[in-house]
Amino acid sequence: MPKKKLLQADYILAWDNAPEIISQGEIVIEDSLITYIGPRLERREKDFEEIIKGRDNLIMPGFINTHTHAAMSLFRGYADDMALMDWLNNKIWPAEAKLRKEDIYWGTMLAIAEMLRGGTTCFADMYFHMDEAARACLESGIRASLAQGLTGLDKIKGMAGLKEGSSLVRNWHNKGDGRITVMLGPHAPYTCPPDYLQKVLEKAADLDVPIHIHLAETRAEVKECLSKYGKTPVELMEEIGLLDHRVLAAHCVHLTEKEIEILAEKETAIAHNPGSNLKLGSGTAPVAKLLEKGVPVGLGTDSAASNNNLDMLEEMRLAALLPKGLLENPTVVPAETALKMATINGADALFLSNEVGILKKGAKADLIMFNLNQPHFYPRHNILAHLVYSARSADINLVMVNGTVLMSDGELLTIDEERVFFEAQLRATRLVY
Amino acid sequence: MPKKKLLQADYILAWDNAPEIISQGEIVIEDSLITYIGPRLERREKDFEEIIKGRDNLIMPGFINTHTHAAMSLFRGYADDMALMDWLNNKIWPAEAKLRKEDIYWGTMLAIAEMLRGGTTCFADMYFHMDEAARACLESGIRASLAQGLTGLDKIKGMAGLKEGSSLVRNWHNKGDGRITVMLGPHAPYTCPPDYLQKVLEKAADLDVPIHIHLAETRAEVKECLSKYGKTPVELMEEIGLLDHRVLAAHCVHLTEKEIEILAEKETAIAHNPGSNLKLGSGTAPVAKLLEKGVPVGLGTDSAASNNNLDMLEEMRLAALLPKGLLENPTVVPAETALKMATINGADALFLSNEVGILKKGAKADLIMFNLNQPHFYPRHNILAHLVYSARSADINLVMVNGTVLMSDGELLTIDEERVFFEAQLRATRLVY
Repeated sequence: MPKKKLLQADYILAWDNAPEIISQGEIVIEDSLITYIGPRLERREKDFEEIIKGRDNLIMPGFINTHTHAAMSLFRGYADDMALMDWLNNKIWPAEAKLRKEDIYWGTMLAIAEMLRGGTTCFADMYFHMDEAARACLESGIRASLAQGLTGLDKIKGMAGLKEGSSLVRNWHNKGDGRITVMLGPHAPYTCPPDYLQKVLEKAADLDVPIHIHLAETRAEVKECLSKYGKTPVELMEEIGLLDHRVLAAHCVHLTEKEIEILAEKETAIAHNPGSNLKLGSGTAPVAKLLEKGVPVGLGTDSAASNNNLDMLEEMRLAALLPKGLLENPTVVPAETALKMATINGADALFLSNEVGILKKGAKADLIMFNLNQPHFYPRHNILAHLVYSARSADINLVMVNGTVLMSDGELLTIDEERVFFEAQLRATRLVY
Repeated sequence: MPKKKLLQADYILAWDNAPEIISQGEIVIEDSLITYIGPRLERREKDFEEIIKGRDNLIMPGFINTHTHAAMSLFRGYADDMALMDWLNNKIWPAEAKLRKEDIYWGTMLAIAEMLRGGTTCFADMYFHMDEAARACLESGIRASLAQGLTGLDKIKGMAGLKEGSSLVRNWHNKGDGRITVMLGPHAPYTCPPDYLQKVLEKAADLDVPIHIHLAETRAEVKECLSKYGKTPVELMEEIGLLDHRVLAAHCVHLTEKEIEILAEKETAIAHNPGSNLKLGSGTAPVAKLLEKGVPVGLGTDSAASNNNLDMLEEMRLAALLPKGLLENPTVVPAETALKMATINGADALFLSNEVGILKKGAKADLIMFNLNQPHFYPRHNILAHLVYSARSADINLVMVNGTVLMSDGELLTIDEERVFFEAQLRATRLVY
């Protein structure tokens, strides 16, 4: 007999082709899967090991954070309002050089605690010592797509990294009841020359995993790429054949019309990080145009070192608001589109379409519940708009991943937060000393 | 004997010429005023009617929302993602035509509930039936600067409005132990022709109150002003002599270099509303330049009909992030500046300098307390940066205005929220029916 759970709420945001709010609905979960979603039926309480009733609550799919470096939470607030290269050269890189394996575990755990509280049920991560990140995901119960960050400027380091990245795939891909998946993570065109990217690509094809890469983040990157290779970053990636593989490209801030066409044609998934792009002064990505061309754009927070939080509601709001202001057109990226970016598109971007980011029969039970009994949810003219333009992450009172409740009534059930805060503080202090 | 209160917290953000974090500090409050702020001294508990101890908490000045239309909370989510004139003509204005006096009271109360929860202790409001708004402020205990919205396109309505606006001054200015102040509120240059603005100006001088006006919000407004008067909005206001008076100008999105110079010279206070300006597709104000020229720029949410929340932390973050991204320069509007905009500059903009927006001996006790025991406040590299880039309004667990606690442990003490939600829902439904 599978373990069955019953969730009832005044509102359930279902989504097949279009968003639909089910009033007085319910969801049945068996093990990790949704087996029923719809109006309430007659049920026998004893058939369920757990029944959750959300009066004046709304259930929706959990958010999917398509780009972060979780363990960098240890650097939150360490260095802000600085020019990018000054920030990297004089602050981040010296501190990163002191990172130990266990720091990654605790930094990732801190990030997971924050993400779960903010309704993120799945994230794409790229960093070092990723065995430790995987361990944090396994223990906390969150879903993640992990990648070892690879750089190929130094040949020996490049090959060692590729070996490490490959063992991450072999050791962790599809582990944790399928919650953990793995990609290969060549850092960026400017740290991974074409011949190295070729090797990564071959390995990714061989292991049958996607690739997670930073692309066209800053104006300086594009300039360097043009002067070195006579091509823009996206053109270079196309030439190498990278875009014929499943690729998650983070940022894509500075794109030509031609590059947008290429990304659309190749169906390259994009992680849009509006908060981090603003904060680092990188610029603003042409999101409305990418969406218009059908490019699958998900949302990411980037790391807490450059954001400085991991709040997907904030990214969703920025994704909806920024293009309106920049294009002086309030009709672009409407609420529904922004909500889709944070959920369905995120699943597409992580190559988990139909499994997560959506509530329907047969999908994984990755969901969150909002307490609507708050001033900013009144009046109830349009709940979908409220979720995008008014909701706050602290309104989330229940988080479930893979059928398991990870947060309930503001309490994390799988993470000892006090311990995490203590370890994070201790280690962060050492790193920046 | 005055009523004395003692507040202790692990961190207190004081601010004289520069921000200073007092560790293990305390604040003594007598009636409405701060009489001591500094390190902890030996105290006798019995000298205080109330003692609040904030372990792992931070106390800072309450936020000052320099521009909103509080009662428009009734239209939150009623109409989003629409072109401005479509939104006004077909949605907002028809619904506003149905507004009754009591709707203003309940809509304002809903806004105050949300603002207090988000740490706003003072706001500048412009709308209709402002006696009702004043009553809501009086009862809830919040501080506010109120203005009756005036339009002068119709002469008879214009004079009647001016009369109403003047009685608001006479009936409410400095009421509620000084918490309520009043301005005159000519809506905008495009709804108030020069001769009408002259009359408003004379009346404002006569009554000795400031003026609150919308200015240069959209490109269309500037165009119309140029074609009608051969001058930009700020130039026109200068010509009329309006800027020689104390003026709070909301928006100022589309400005020429010359207009920025005029605003700086006249020391016109500006309410910057980044969220609303983005959402309505109005554009992005030249904040970095205005600040550089010494223009006092405070922050506002505008109404919940165009934001769609009244969250000052969000506006503060937008104010800090937007210019960085737009100018591709991460060093502009650093955290400290953004924090100042939300507090000290806000007080300047409402002509309440040194009274509020700051914690020091002799200032009004308008303050808020954050619970720092949360993942997004770790590690503690830089608490000031955390307040701007990581904090969420739900982290606020205590709100005091004028020496009186209005929210404690997430509970509003002066507002019956369930009743407010009920009335707001009922009335909002009628308005849009």
